[in-house]
Amino acid sequence: MVQDFKLASRDYKKEDTIIQVGDVEIGGNDFVMIAGPCAVESEAQLMTTAYEVKNSGANILRGGAYKPRTSPHSFQGLGEEGLILLAKTREEINIPIITEVMDTRDVKLVEKYADILQIGTRNMQNFSLLKEVGCTQKPVLLKRGMMATIYDFLLSAEYILNEGNENVILCERGIRTFESLTRNTLDLSAIPIIKKLSHLPIIVDPSHSTGRRDLVKPMTKAAIAAGAHGAMIEVHIERDKALCDGNQSLTPQDFLNLMQEIQPLIKFIKTQQSLQII
Amino acid sequence: MVQDFKLASRDYKKEDTIIQVGDVEIGGNDFVMIAGPCAVESEAQLMTTAYEVKNSGANILRGGAYKPRTSPHSFQGLGEEGLILLAKTREEINIPIITEVMDTRDVKLVEKYADILQIGTRNMQNFSLLKEVGCTQKPVLLKRGMMATIYDFLLSAEYILNEGNENVILCERGIRTFESLTRNTLDLSAIPIIKKLSHLPIIVDPSHSTGRRDLVKPMTKAAIAAGAHGAMIEVHIERDKALCDGNQSLTPQDFLNLMQEIQPLIKFIKTQQSLQII
Amino acid sequence: MVQDFKLASRDYKKEDTIIQVGDVEIGGNDFVMIAGPCAVESEAQLMTTAYEVKNSGANILRGGAYKPRTSPHSFQGLGEEGLILLAKTREEINIPIITEVMDTRDVKLVEKYADILQIGTRNMQNFSLLKEVGCTQKPVLLKRGMMATIYDFLLSAEYILNEGNENVILCERGIRTFESLTRNTLDLSAIPIIKKLSHLPIIVDPSHSTGRRDLVKPMTKAAIAAGAHGAMIEVHIERDKALCDGNQSLTPQDFLNLMQEIQPLIKFIKTQQSLQII
Amino acid sequence: MVQDFKLASRDYKKEDTIIQVGDVEIGGNDFVMIAGPCAVESEAQLMTTAYEVKNSGANILRGGAYKPRTSPHSFQGLGEEGLILLAKTREEINIPIITEVMDTRDVKLVEKYADILQIGTRNMQNFSLLKEVGCTQKPVLLKRGMMATIYDFLLSAEYILNEGNENVILCERGIRTFESLTRNTLDLSAIPIIKKLSHLPIIVDPSHSTGRRDLVKPMTKAAIAAGAHGAMIEVHIERDKALCDGNQSLTPQDFLNLMQEIQPLIKFIKTQQSLQII
Repeated sequence: MVQDFKLASRDYKKEDTIIQVGDVEIGGNDFVMIAGPCAVESEAQLMTTAYEVKNSGANILRGGAYKPRTSPHSFQGLGEEGLILLAKTREEINIPIITEVMDTRDVKLVEKYADILQIGTRNMQNFSLLKEVGCTQKPVLLKRGMMATIYDFLLSAEYILNEGNENVILCERGIRTFESLTRNTLDLSAIPIIKKLSHLPIIVDPSHSTGRRDLVKPMTKAAIAAGAHGAMIEVHIERDKALCDGNQSLTPQDFLNLMQEIQPLIKFIKTQQSLQII
Repeated sequence: MVQDFKLASRDYKKEDTIIQVGDVEIGGNDFVMIAGPCAVESEAQLMTTAYEVKNSGANILRGGAYKPRTSPHSFQGLGEEGLILLAKTREEINIPIITEVMDTRDVKLVEKYADILQIGTRNMQNFSLLKEVGCTQKPVLLKRGMMATIYDFLLSAEYILNEGNENVILCERGIRTFESLTRNTLDLSAIPIIKKLSHLPIIVDPSHSTGRRDLVKPMTKAAIAAGAHGAMIEVHIERDKALCDGNQSLTPQDFLNLMQEIQPLIKFIKTQQSLQII
Repeated sequence: MVQDFKLASRDYKKEDTIIQVGDVEIGGNDFVMIAGPCAVESEAQLMTTAYEVKNSGANILRGGAYKPRTSPHSFQGLGEEGLILLAKTREEINIPIITEVMDTRDVKLVEKYADILQIGTRNMQNFSLLKEVGCTQKPVLLKRGMMATIYDFLLSAEYILNEGNENVILCERGIRTFESLTRNTLDLSAIPIIKKLSHLPIIVDPSHSTGRRDLVKPMTKAAIAAGAHGAMIEVHIERDKALCDGNQSLTPQDFLNLMQEIQPLIKFIKTQQSLQII
Repeated sequence: MVQDFKLASRDYKKEDTIIQVGDVEIGGNDFVMIAGPCAVESEAQLMTTAYEVKNSGANILRGGAYKPRTSPHSFQGLGEEGLILLAKTREEINIPIITEVMDTRDVKLVEKYADILQIGTRNMQNFSLLKEVGCTQKPVLLKRGMMATIYDFLLSAEYILNEGNENVILCERGIRTFESLTRNTLDLSAIPIIKKLSHLPIIVDPSHSTGRRDLVKPMTKAAIAAGAHGAMIEVHIERDKALCDGNQSLTPQDFLNLMQEIQPLIKFIKTQQSLQII
């Protein structure tokens, strides 16, 4: 196993990469919270969710306009209409937005609307797409493939950096194992390993990795303690009617409870970090 | 786990799908052999290989013009120049060609040159690409994702069928496990399972799955006995100089030996199948 | 990963180890068939099964007196009573018997009755047990742990050899993966790898690995073609009433069909092997 | 997958099981720290380590007298001599001791010396051994098999409870995956899942799961935040000379640093827990 990433490595760049999105800094001292529905379904749904999660302390709104679904017979997302709703919500609520892009041909369009471009787990090794988002001016959130080693993951980031885009956010979202009580197994050891090998920010997705809403809180807390720079959480206003992934979504009230509980922990960890050389 | 594939299922279509490519039938009684280099490197390399493998009994020539490499610093393929060399070789040697397409924007171009379009393991859930090749008139060889369950695999085939392209060839190429003496673990039980669940042809790739040339022969024989419709084998004229995957490539002489050894087995299995209801 | 097995390696012993059990040679040119119920349930069940499988061509009778069950609330086997029934059946039907031992304290007792001692997958790294069976005079069939690499597997064989017992039969029985259409994933590439690394015989268990009776025939054929020295198959006279693992059991009639179909293949492969240097 | 554990379930027993060992309560509000060398090597080594880890705040001393080593040619432990040294150290340093038992025939002997009996990952489904320790009066620490689902794990605990021993401590120690930068993948989601399904205490082993000393601190902190009842850490006074697992061992000084850093976090989490219903 030869280490073949250069631009993504600590050797290449000693200090942490900090990415500015609106008022938010990703990769610095803050723990950044990205929240929102799996898919954009309607203006009312998106506005309400955005309003609620922002009030609870979320920094960035997530919502999918293009949805990578295992089956072609499942809801595939609203497409450009979804992007327009996301942009409208950003203006109304004043919160940056992140959304997924799945097709090289859509990159320019999505770039026009989104503050952060997301590459999903199933496209982590879609190298054409990585190169294309590497040519944009927007930060890219790259999710770890559910079958990808940490080296594979960093090499996919390398594809983006290699095209000149230095703003890559890594996202651990679980790997595929034999355990079936969770959808995937969240690999939290990836956080300290990546912080050692790379200068890029690393966040976690406790919603998709576990597939269970009851695990979102303990796994978010564990990620904070392990040193993650942020988390991405699914929130749905009516999860029983969600067009995708209702099982793992929090309600806005759940999300508020989560934020109230983790904020003291974040503050505690931050204070502890400033007192020491880690 | 809900079965959500319809068009790919045996319930939808009772009889086996047989796909005609030149003189070759994939999915029928023949065991189809696809052989050639991992990547198209030069005209001389491709012509020589094509000549040799055809003489040894290969039915279809493989060769990559676009290469999905884990690292951006590895050889990425010759692009359209490679496609032109493939087409030229087809005319000279009179053998159908298969080559990979990685980007929705390249589908029309690759369709112009290739007899079969290949979707690689890392793009098995690149749904935009699946839809795009589903709109072409050419057969598609879909490789199983190294992290994909058999259901996921059939649902990805469903994406292609759903656009109207009925000619999908499935290819088992190993799944990711903890065993490290092979690159991946070839899941031969997928063959009888897929033949039960689906009407689509299923072949194997013993070269990429094992990553070891010494395992190509026994795994090809095992696949024949398990009922596969064909195999895809890497052959390189100078494997020590191969620009990718030299370790797993056979020399043309190795490939001739392989063909001489498996042909009686193929004939034996075919005779046995015709004597019984399996 | 350091290779740390010596006695099990080809370097230590060039020629194949052939183990004599009654009239049967394991590890030589024959493909040895071990068949019988998962658990010994009654004299009638065992006698009938033994009679049937022997008539169909089985060489050795399997049957568990001590059963390693995931739950303490499942049937745990008949214990010594089961051993007595096995021995009685051997006398009546004239067929060697293999049975599992799970506890160091039972080794002497089981040795008294059985022709081959079996170590189950869950005990592959029960090193005390490996040492204890290494001190007996009986051949040992060692099943690969469902989480064990091939190196781990050979090192467990090394424990037995290291105590002076040279008669170890290896059995590939599937490894744990994310695929859920089979109980485990049968790793047939382990056969040629082990034949290269070690002089010990290697057989497969298509019943336990797949957990599905419809996969027993194709996987047995694949194993023959891949070069295995034998197979171990579950047969139950009334599988709907089986006290364990009914889903994967063949009926005696199924087993007869299997034997009739694989015997020509075995003969074919044997002829082919004698014509060449592999 | 049917849930088949009764005695281990929350349905059977609502309140948390709290296990008293000396002055320590495992499963209550305290975060219990078990520390010590992988193997007992000498009196000097053990006494020094025990003295150091106790001074740093460890509650229990670990040390193996019987070592389950993958290879028979590796150091196998001092056996009863090791047990005697452990007992002597307990008297001198006044700290409870935990040690592994691997053989049903050794259970009575180990019970005589140890405060807690440990079942290692490779013996998690050694059902004879589980039954035997289930008949003792001592608490049992059961490590999750590296291939075991959470259901398998709880069913193995059920074997011990079923014999009448109610004092079982569960230990998550990593499962086998394809990731190779860590020895195994620590599954921290197992902590909240087990706390929901079972009343038994659950601790983690960050040393064996990761196989890397640099990951011990972040993974211990993550485990605390996820709600674990304790951790088990390898400490060696001269790790370069360790007879096993030196790579993952902390020095006594590292361990002191770890304890100083986690103690405020433990206190913080405890305070937070007492303020809410989780």
